[in-house]
Parts: sequence; structure tokens; C-alpha cells
Amino acid sequence: MRTIHVIGIGAGDPDHLTLQAIKAIKATEVFFLLDKGEEKSDLTGLRKAMLDEHIPDGSYRVVEARDPARDRKTDNYAPAVDDWRSRRADIYERLIGEELDDGQTGAFLVWGDPALYDSTLGILEEILERGRVEFSYDVIPGISSVSALVARHRTGLNRVARPVQITTGRRLAQGFPEGVDDVVVMLDAHQSFTHYTDQDIEIHWGAYIGTPDEILVSGPLAEAAPRIAELRAEARARKGWIMDTYLLRRNPGG
Amino acid sequence: MRTIHVIGIGAGDPDHLTLQAIKAIKATEVFFLLDKGEEKSDLTGLRKAMLDEHIPDGSYRVVEARDPARDRKTDNYAPAVDDWRSRRADIYERLIGEELDDGQTGAFLVWGDPALYDSTLGILEEILERGRVEFSYDVIPGISSVSALVARHRTGLNRVARPVQITTGRRLAQGFPEGVDDVVVMLDAHQSFTHYTDQDIEIHWGAYIGTPDEILVSGPLAEAAPRIAELRAEARARKGWIMDTYLLRRNPGG
Repeated sequence: MRTIHVIGIGAGDPDHLTLQAIKAIKATEVFFLLDKGEEKSDLTGLRKAMLDEHIPDGSYRVVEARDPARDRKTDNYAPAVDDWRSRRADIYERLIGEELDDGQTGAFLVWGDPALYDSTLGILEEILERGRVEFSYDVIPGISSVSALVARHRTGLNRVARPVQITTGRRLAQGFPEGVDDVVVMLDAHQSFTHYTDQDIEIHWGAYIGTPDEILVSGPLAEAAPRIAELRAEARARKGWIMDTYLLRRNPGG
Repeated sequence: MRTIHVIGIGAGDPDHLTLQAIKAIKATEVFFLLDKGEEKSDLTGLRKAMLDEHIPDGSYRVVEARDPARDRKTDNYAPAVDDWRSRRADIYERLIGEELDDGQTGAFLVWGDPALYDSTLGILEEILERGRVEFSYDVIPGISSVSALVARHRTGLNRVARPVQITTGRRLAQGFPEGVDDVVVMLDAHQSFTHYTDQDIEIHWGAYIGTPDEILVSGPLAEAAPRIAELRAEARARKGWIMDTYLLRRNPGG
């Protein structure tokens, strides 16, 4: 039987690693690193540096593969994601089947927390359903970019006795979520917060959180939005990619 | 100037500690441990065991105090919390002012993540606003019971491209949140999930997550609800206290 660890490695700061993650890393023989292409090779380098720090004798093997490209142009988001996930499952299935011997342990290193907007768990379930490769797996929770964001801003996610919602930029663009005033937005390529600059909203924004490139902006949305747009465009041009997250707090005084 | 670290120490498993949390612990001279009374002294013991593991020469000081009791009988939840928070701020202000010298570093060890349903950050801001004690503080994010719960159940918080809401048992009892089908519930003393057993909902429930007492139940809500109620009552009677969290997934097939 093969074993797979799905390891949350935190939001970018190597010190986000938990003791549980380090133990799982030390117990792993083969690491599968999926690369989204040149623009994100920084992130592959960061993961290799973590491995070298915690497995100093180099007694591990890395198998790298290229993530399939996702069709980002379609309006039909969910089916595009399903198709992309199936192509990704093909790759993962081949990696596990060919690169991991019976009795060996492999791992996927997931940025943030594997529970939040990450496809690894869904892909592993899809492979198990296909039934061609057998393995058992467990999940090591990680510090999400959501937790890291609000820690850096020294604020809570929720207000006393109130809810918080975590959603996508695409959803936010369709309307401010009902029934909540505290909303965390991930995966927003289009700065959907600009739709709400006429409301009494405070924003806590961060990019490349936990890394030396970290940028943080907080303030009333109407004032902060243009500054964030500018910083975001500039950082994206300079680094070739951006990962950002933000908390919107409606009626911050209430 | 005094420095305070607000350190998220994870959901109960000592291996949830991050490297960042351990560095902050090693850099701390005085730990403030607030005890909610006898019933939670297990939790104080767990924190002391963490300190002894990571500061083996015992070169730290612990200051213990009793948390004020919260009026849990009132219907007016938010004002009761405000009053409780102010009384708690009185205690914290005195601890920081009297037990920490200028130039020293103190820390609060917070279960889970300080960003989720924890009052420490709000209390520190209240003390700074009063202006009688000066200090700077930072926040170390931790593995929340929410992340730990879903990792143990090997499921995600959100479904592809969809939102997730984190709320309280009190709110859930007032109605299933609008616009979301994936809801995490914390602080539920009254098993509010029992209101929804007539709906197509899957529950992932856990108590004492990450500890040797951990209990996990998953399944269709109608089937799982009576079993959870029974396990919960039995565990609560045996240990004298319970901490549990759950994810409700409405229309799990959709």
C-alpha cells in the first residue's frame, strides 16, 4: 500500500510550517511538486528550500511535473475547473502509480491550508474512485493566507458573535454576500472590491503574505482602493505573478 | 516599551505549533495564562506542557489569573460579551502593567487561531485605548479548530468556486445562512444542527480535535445527529467540558 501526505505548508513564510508538517515531511520519500509554469517558479524554489532545511541529508526525491493550463477565458467557470481537475487527476494518477513503489510514502506540499480553495483533496478522491491506483492519505492542516493576512493586520476575521464568509472575487463581483458584513476574498484577479467603494467598508489587503515581498494596505475602501490597484499592478509587472487576499469589513463602526 | 506576542497555538495537538510560534515562545519572558475555572484546567496543563517542551531550561515565568465568569443566561448576548470583555480587559491591563517590566516581552497563548472567535486582540486594543499601559504587540497565526476539523475529515471547507461561512450556534439556530451551502459552526452549546435534520445536509463533526480525546462523526445529518447528541452528552459528563466544531454541507451531491 502507498501512503500520501497532503501537507499544508503555510502562506509563504517558512516559519508557518507546523511541527506536524515537519514530521510528515521527514517521513516522506517522494515529493510531488507541480509547477504552474515559469511565472511561479519562485514558489517551487521556496518549497525546495523548506525541504533542504528540514531534511538536511538530502534523503528525499522530488518529482516535478507541469500543471495543465486552465482555460481562464471561458465564462463557464465551474465546468472549466472540472475539466482542468480531471486533466490534473490524470497527471497525479500517473505520478503516484509510476513514481511511488508499494509501501512508499509520497507527499504533496500545498500552499496555505489544503481545505481552502485547493484542489488536491478532490483530485485524490477522483483518482481513488477510478480505482486504478491504490493508496491511503491524510491531511496536515496549514496556516492559510486568510489567517496570515489578518494576523499581519492584527485584526480578527469575525466581530463578536458575528459570522464571516470566505468567497471568491468572481462571487463578490456578483454582489456583496447576504447576511454577513465581514467577507474574505480569495482568487480575485479583477479587483472586485472596486465595485463597493461607495459603501462604508474597511479593507485589509495583503499580497505575497509572509514572504519578503509582502505588501499590506489597510483603510477605508474608498481611499485604499486606488492605492491597492496601483501597488498590485506594479508588483504584478515586476514579479510576473501576484497572490493576494483581503478582508472587507462593512460598517466597521457597527 | 513592553512587547506582547499573541500566539495561536493550534487546536489541541502540540504538533500544531508553528516554527513561528515556537520562536515567539522562546523570545517570551512572561506567559499570561487565563484559566476559565477547574473544568478547563486540562487546557492550562496542556499549555504548560508545551512551554516545558520548547523552553527546556525552564527560563520563563507563568502568571496565572482567573477569567471573569460570563453571564451565559442572558438573552442579550452582545452586551453581555462587551461587559465580560471589559472586565477581562481590567485583568489583562493589571497583569501587563504589574507583571511585565519595561523592555520585557510577554505572551498570551491562544487556542486555535487568534483571528477566530477569540477576544484577546479586542481586549488588547481596549487597553491601549485606555492609555494607562503602553505596549506593542504582534499576532502569530495558528491552526484553527476549523482547519483541524476538516483535515481530520479529509474534506475541504469550500466546494469548487463556492463560498463558506463560519458562524456561531446561536446564529445557526436563527436560520440557515443565506447564499451559502457550506457552513462551519463554532461555540454551539445547544446543538443547533438538530433544527435541520429534515434537509439534505451532510455533517462533519468533531470534539476535542487534535487531542487524545478526539471524537469524529461524519454522515447524513438525519442519521448522525442523534449519535452526535449522545456522544456529546456522554463526553461532556465524563470530562466536565466539551469543545466541538462542525461543518454542515447542504445538498452534498450538488
